[in-house]
Amino acid sequence: MEELIATHAIEQAFVHYFDRIDANDPEGAVEVMVEDVEFEIMIGKRKQGRDRFARSVGRVLDQYERTSHHLTNVKVRLEGDGADVLAYVYAYHRMRNTGEPWHLWARMHDQFRRVEDRWMITEHILLGLDAQPNRPDIPRSWYPGHPGRLDRTPL
Amino acid sequence: MEELIATHAIEQAFVHYFDRIDANDPEGAVEVMVEDVEFEIMIGKRKQGRDRFARSVGRVLDQYERTSHHLTNVKVRLEGDGADVLAYVYAYHRMRNTGEPWHLWARMHDQFRRVEDRWMITEHILLGLDAQPNRPDIPRSWYPGHPGRLDRTPL
Amino acid sequence: MEELIATHAIEQAFVHYFDRIDANDPEGAVEVMVEDVEFEIMIGKRKQGRDRFARSVGRVLDQYERTSHHLTNVKVRLEGDGADVLAYVYAYHRMRNTGEPWHLWARMHDQFRRVEDRWMITEHILLGLDAQPNRPDIPRSWYPGHPGRLDRTPL
Repeated sequence: MEELIATHAIEQAFVHYFDRIDANDPEGAVEVMVEDVEFEIMIGKRKQGRDRFARSVGRVLDQYERTSHHLTNVKVRLEGDGADVLAYVYAYHRMRNTGEPWHLWARMHDQFRRVEDRWMITEHILLGLDAQPNRPDIPRSWYPGHPGRLDRTPL
Repeated sequence: MEELIATHAIEQAFVHYFDRIDANDPEGAVEVMVEDVEFEIMIGKRKQGRDRFARSVGRVLDQYERTSHHLTNVKVRLEGDGADVLAYVYAYHRMRNTGEPWHLWARMHDQFRRVEDRWMITEHILLGLDAQPNRPDIPRSWYPGHPGRLDRTPL
Repeated sequence: MEELIATHAIEQAFVHYFDRIDANDPEGAVEVMVEDVEFEIMIGKRKQGRDRFARSVGRVLDQYERTSHHLTNVKVRLEGDGADVLAYVYAYHRMRNTGEPWHLWARMHDQFRRVEDRWMITEHILLGLDAQPNRPDIPRSWYPGHPGRLDRTPL
């Protein structure tokens, strides 16, 4: 029951976040983050601060004429006033310079904390799963795929 | 709690709607709408009536051999017995005439009203975000993008 | 209320399943199935057994370098300790041999049973809706489209 209510609140935080991203509104997007949020958009490059994140996202958004971020597969593990959250996002983008589409499949691995009545993001990790088409300005290492993907050898 | 139950019911109304759309069954789809529903599928062209909507959707569906409508990012704001609802849909279509795929990213902005035990659509606005590939029979103005997208000028 | 809790648990079973599929971990994926699960991945070819299913899925996954399965449109009909469940999945794949993307739109029609505190899959039917691009190794009959799609004749 409690899990249900928290899961709903956390999903709605992401829904708000992506609505604002798709509105080209980084200031609005980061409303769901705490001020000293830690984030990792490029794997291994950890940074801190909501304002810094907003500027960073703003520069990324400057590349697109439009975007549409579709959230699915949200998984919440409650731990007291905290939550460990996994979610999938498929994102459609139309590039500003070429007018061409660019598709991204990614996973988020975020930490949330209950602050009074709201669930806020305290840590945001974005893991690129893959993208189409390949963009020369983005190294393939940004799309490492599923973290912990097993290496079963085909027979 | 109440919000959770209403949100679930509203999501399920959309799930039913799209199941029937993908079944090429416009009559079944409109079961979640009130008889005098207002709708706007082309921006600025407001029309009225569930039967009219069904005929209109039927003509659109005639163009496709198959469709698959994937609902995400549902956001419900309850106001008594009404609800203001935003949702994303990504729709895959296979064109009947060419056999080629056509992809649509769109947003719905709907009004719901509780009628006895059910949540029904009283107003349905479909906003095209973008589509691929461009179709000569659809003017680009049908995909205005995110309503209220900010015009931050890149530095 | 009870429906809400069951729906959430069932969605989470799928979310776990696809997380493990995308991790190339068929053993982990089938944890949400009962041991004598019945399954139908190719229409009309019914088989039985969780281990057999895991091996079967493993052979399919061997073809891909990475996958991303996005779950939407989950519809749960409770019947006592059982549930009849429909869901959509859009799946992105990167082929191991060619490096090319392959997209699948599908529906699941599953039966769940409450086993103590968990909801487990007792029957799993995967219905291909369509795929892009066409693969010479997969007959088009694997993508029959929406089951029960109406054949309204366009005027």
